Amino acid sequence: MPRLCIHTITNKPWSIEDCARNYPTAGVSGITIWRHNLEGRDPKIIGAQCRDAGLEIVSLCRGGFFPGRSREERRRAIDDNRLAIEQAHALDANLIVLVCGAVPGQPLAESRKQIAEGIAAVLPDAEAAAVRLAIEPLHPMYADDRSAINTMRQANEVCDELGSPAHLGLAVDVYHVWWDPELESQIATTGRNGRLFAFHICDWKTPTTDLLNDRGLMGDGCIPIGEISRWVDDTGFTGFREVEIFSNRYWAMDQDAYLKQITASYQQLYAAEAR
Amino acid sequence: MPRLCIHTITNKPWSIEDCARNYPTAGVSGITIWRHNLEGRDPKIIGAQCRDAGLEIVSLCRGGFFPGRSREERRRAIDDNRLAIEQAHALDANLIVLVCGAVPGQPLAESRKQIAEGIAAVLPDAEAAAVRLAIEPLHPMYADDRSAINTMRQANEVCDELGSPAHLGLAVDVYHVWWDPELESQIATTGRNGRLFAFHICDWKTPTTDLLNDRGLMGDGCIPIGEISRWVDDTGFTGFREVEIFSNRYWAMDQDAYLKQITASYQQLYAAEAR
Repeated sequence: MPRLCIHTITNKPWSIEDCARNYPTAGVSGITIWRHNLEGRDPKIIGAQCRDAGLEIVSLCRGGFFPGRSREERRRAIDDNRLAIEQAHALDANLIVLVCGAVPGQPLAESRKQIAEGIAAVLPDAEAAAVRLAIEPLHPMYADDRSAINTMRQANEVCDELGSPAHLGLAVDVYHVWWDPELESQIATTGRNGRLFAFHICDWKTPTTDLLNDRGLMGDGCIPIGEISRWVDDTGFTGFREVEIFSNRYWAMDQDAYLKQITASYQQLYAAEAR
Repeated sequence: MPRLCIHTITNKPWSIEDCARNYPTAGVSGITIWRHNLEGRDPKIIGAQCRDAGLEIVSLCRGGFFPGRSREERRRAIDDNRLAIEQAHALDANLIVLVCGAVPGQPLAESRKQIAEGIAAVLPDAEAAAVRLAIEPLHPMYADDRSAINTMRQANEVCDELGSPAHLGLAVDVYHVWWDPELESQIATTGRNGRLFAFHICDWKTPTTDLLNDRGLMGDGCIPIGEISRWVDDTGFTGFREVEIFSNRYWAMDQDAYLKQITASYQQLYAAEAR
């Protein structure tokens, strides 16, 4: 499964060492590392461990959270994004996913302005480190406190506003954008502009019982993941499909058994390609 | 409070008779009646009771749910909407709010087509009964099973598609659309086209712990209700502000005390107008 990547948060109970050991034997080729996995570790060593195990490091998750009520908060956010860029460089990962942030009660227009300013501030560091930044539009149900960027159109507008730098693009996560009536055309636009940097998959369950941690494994829900994958590939995208699932239910499972479910679900979804 | 209306679902523990008795004494001028309140009752009598108590019946909630897997399901939905039109006519309410519907796993484009077909089928009945239909765009977190119409732009496109009939417009609920980067311009467009039929208010809590029944009272959350109300009024809208709150927490409260909170919150929000 040369295009299958898993986000370490998907197997939250595992350490980064567990993930690096278990993913390759399950047939997983890529890993996206969440920053909490780096605590108390040397990112250079983690990067080498992953590559020695046969894994490509697809991205570091996550930077962003630029808006803040005070100048001091926003400065700290920029510092933290610079740290993330250093960590990505040390890991030899060439991509950071940005969850852009929002402050409850602060006007969305103001948060959107602060997001553009924050990205502008760290872009030179990203370019110097040869690390790309991917704005991930988040589902509108996270507009209060996680991201004021809620559609692909908005993310593309931020790229336009900043002069379309080569190191700035989008991460498309089906969970966040599947409902968007502009999805197909926005994927095409993003690809045409060379901005489609990452593609995340999971599913939307009916009912969804928790706004954060009740995502489904591919096949559990109603997202037309295969169709969206074709739209993505039609732009010329040949990168990883990254499985990113926040789920209290799956986190409570035996993680070896869960990993088998993930790879089986992935194989079923993309069965036509394997033939 | 001449523009304050409350949806009976807001005080779910109360019967329609409780609402009709308690709203006027609290200073509430309008009532939007939910259809479950009509069970076992004659809508003509309910309508007269409300008016005798001094309440204007703002709308009947709700029609819609047009998509279905089979022709038979879609036909039943149309029949049910015709019944709603009869009920509204009997109540002497001149507006029905449409929650348009969606079928989990059915392509959203197909559900959107079925919605337009369903509305087209019942529009002649609505016109004959002098009852208007208001498409309520629902938050994208309900795209799986409640509505495939998730933005004001989409709702306006349905009106355009059906030839902009005089009896078809929009209900704007801040809970569903507050995040939309096009909100201000879409409100203006909707008003300019004579389609702004209803305005619903409540708040978005951080955190929101339930996708359905954890809405906030105005002031509990982050929605800029005052600013959105100004955008609505700037179109020339002089109708009711309708309080519609689904909340397990508020439903568990003493409803008399809760009604006091609602009117206090409304007065605080629109204090400048009262002066």
